[in-house]
Amino acid sequence: MCIANGKFGERFGEIAGRYKADAVTPVNVNVNFEWGHSIELEAVKEALENSSSSDPKIVTMVHNETSTGILNPAKEVGKLARKHDAVFVLDCITSIAGDNVPVDELGADIAIVGSQKCLGAPPGLSALSVSEHAREMIRENERRPYYMDLIAYKKSLEKKQTPYTPALPLFFALHEALAVIREEGMENRIERHRGMAKTVRDAVTGLGLRLFPKLNEVSDYSNTVTAIEIPVANGITDEQLRGGMRKRGVIVAGGQGKLKGEIFRIATMGNITEREVRRTLDALEVVLEENNLTLSD
Amino acid sequence: MCIANGKFGERFGEIAGRYKADAVTPVNVNVNFEWGHSIELEAVKEALENSSSSDPKIVTMVHNETSTGILNPAKEVGKLARKHDAVFVLDCITSIAGDNVPVDELGADIAIVGSQKCLGAPPGLSALSVSEHAREMIRENERRPYYMDLIAYKKSLEKKQTPYTPALPLFFALHEALAVIREEGMENRIERHRGMAKTVRDAVTGLGLRLFPKLNEVSDYSNTVTAIEIPVANGITDEQLRGGMRKRGVIVAGGQGKLKGEIFRIATMGNITEREVRRTLDALEVVLEENNLTLSD
Repeated sequence: MCIANGKFGERFGEIAGRYKADAVTPVNVNVNFEWGHSIELEAVKEALENSSSSDPKIVTMVHNETSTGILNPAKEVGKLARKHDAVFVLDCITSIAGDNVPVDELGADIAIVGSQKCLGAPPGLSALSVSEHAREMIRENERRPYYMDLIAYKKSLEKKQTPYTPALPLFFALHEALAVIREEGMENRIERHRGMAKTVRDAVTGLGLRLFPKLNEVSDYSNTVTAIEIPVANGITDEQLRGGMRKRGVIVAGGQGKLKGEIFRIATMGNITEREVRRTLDALEVVLEENNLTLSD
Repeated sequence: MCIANGKFGERFGEIAGRYKADAVTPVNVNVNFEWGHSIELEAVKEALENSSSSDPKIVTMVHNETSTGILNPAKEVGKLARKHDAVFVLDCITSIAGDNVPVDELGADIAIVGSQKCLGAPPGLSALSVSEHAREMIRENERRPYYMDLIAYKKSLEKKQTPYTPALPLFFALHEALAVIREEGMENRIERHRGMAKTVRDAVTGLGLRLFPKLNEVSDYSNTVTAIEIPVANGITDEQLRGGMRKRGVIVAGGQGKLKGEIFRIATMGNITEREVRRTLDALEVVLEENNLTLSD
C-alpha cells in the first residue's frame, strides 16, 4: 500500500507497480491525496481495513514531501501500519538531519536517507535503517537483488565492510559531511532548518503570497523546503518570478510535474545559510515590486 | 545460460539464480568449466543446442576473468549466441581500456565496464553498451527496476541527462580519467597493458614459477592480471610468499574463493606503471631466494 500526496509519494507507487507482473505479489493499493493536501488518517485507516482479503505486507510513505513542502504524519501512519502487521517504509530522504526523525518512535521499519539533502554530502549514496520485522521479511525473499541484498550488507557490516566494491570517494565525502554535522550538533542543525523555514514562511506571507500546503491536524510545514503559490491571478508568471530572481543571481526551484508554473519552492536544507535565505527573500521582494505586486497592501 | 570458468563467471549464474522463483523465467543453465581452465566451444555449442525445449534468451560470459587471469573467447561465443538468437551479455569490467574490445565485432549485445579497473577512475560507476536486439528485450520487460531502467537512461541520454540524481563527483572523476586515457591514446594504453603482462609472464616463468591458466586454441592470457601458482610443493606458503613481498612494500592479490592459498595474482591494469611492475618482480625474486627457491635452476 503506497500512500501519496505528492510526486515522491506517487513514485513509491510507480516503483511498486513495476513488480505487478509477478504472480506472487498481490495487487498494489495506492492511497492518493491531492498534491499539497494533507494525508487524512481516516482514509488510510479505511484503506488498510478494506484492502481485499489480506492485510497489506508493506506500507510506504514519504516523510517530508518536497514536491509540495509538507511534513506527513509518520508516527500516526506508523501506528496504523503496525496494527496491521505491515512493514512501514518511510522515505526520510529530505527529513533526516533537517527535522527530528526518531525512526523507532515513528514506527518506521525501514527509514531511507539520501546523502545529498540535509546531510549536505554529494549525491550518490543512500543509507537505511532496518527493523528486525523488516529484516525477517527481506530474509524470506529469495529474489532480493544481488547487489542490493541488505542481508549481505548486514553480514559485511559486522566486519566493517561492504559486500562489493563501494563508491569509495563518496564514503569519504559523507564521512566529512557527518563531521560537519557533528561540529554543528544535530539539534542545532535541526533548529537551524526549522528557523530558516519559519523565516521564509513569515516573509512570503508578509509579502502577501500564499503557502501551497493545505495542513490538517496531523500535518505540518516542511523544515527543509517551502512551497509557495505563484500569484498568477495577479498577473505574474513563473518565468517572470523565477526568471527575475535568476537575473539577480538567485535560483529557486519551480513546481514539479503537474505543479509546474503554479508554485515555486525555496529550500532551507543542508548547509544553506541564513544569509543565503535572506538574499533569496530580498530578491523575491524586489521582483514582486518590479511587477507592481505589493500584495500585502 | 551462464558460462563460467572462474569466480566472476559463476557470479553471473548466482545473480540469474535470484530470479528463478519467477514463474515466467525458465530454469537457468550453468555451463561451468574448472577455474583456470579454458572455455570449450564444443561444450557451449552442445549446451545451447540441448537446452530443454526453447533456446536460451540470454547468454552471459566474463571476457577477462581476473580470478584466474584468463581471456575468454568472446567473438566465438558471441557467434554461437547470435546463432540461437540469444542476447549476449559480456562482462568487460576488466578488459575495456586494457585490451582490444570491439563490442559489435565480438557480438556483445550488452558490454559492461566498471570505472575502477582499466579506466583508472574511482569505483562507483558502471557503463554499458546496449545493442538494438538487447534494447528490444529490455523494452518488453515491464518489470525492469525503476532506478536501473535502461530505457529511461536512454531517453534521458538524448537530453544529455540522467533520469535521477547521479553520483556527480564520480562523473567528474571519470571525465578526468577519460582525459588521461585520451592523452595516452587508447592503442598505447592497450599496448602498455599487453607489454606489462608479458613482462610479468616472462619474469615469473623465468623464475621457474608456473602460470595458472590452462589455455586452449581460443583462450589467451589476460592483459590485466597474471595468475601464478604458489609452488606449495616446494615448501613455500601463500603467507610466506605474499607476506614476504608485503614486508618489502609490495602488495599482490591472493587467490579468491577456492583458489585461496594456491595462486597469487599480479595486476597490470589501469594506471599501473612499468616501474611498479619491475619493483613487484624484484620483490618476488628476493622472496623466492630467501626461501631458497631458485626453481629455474
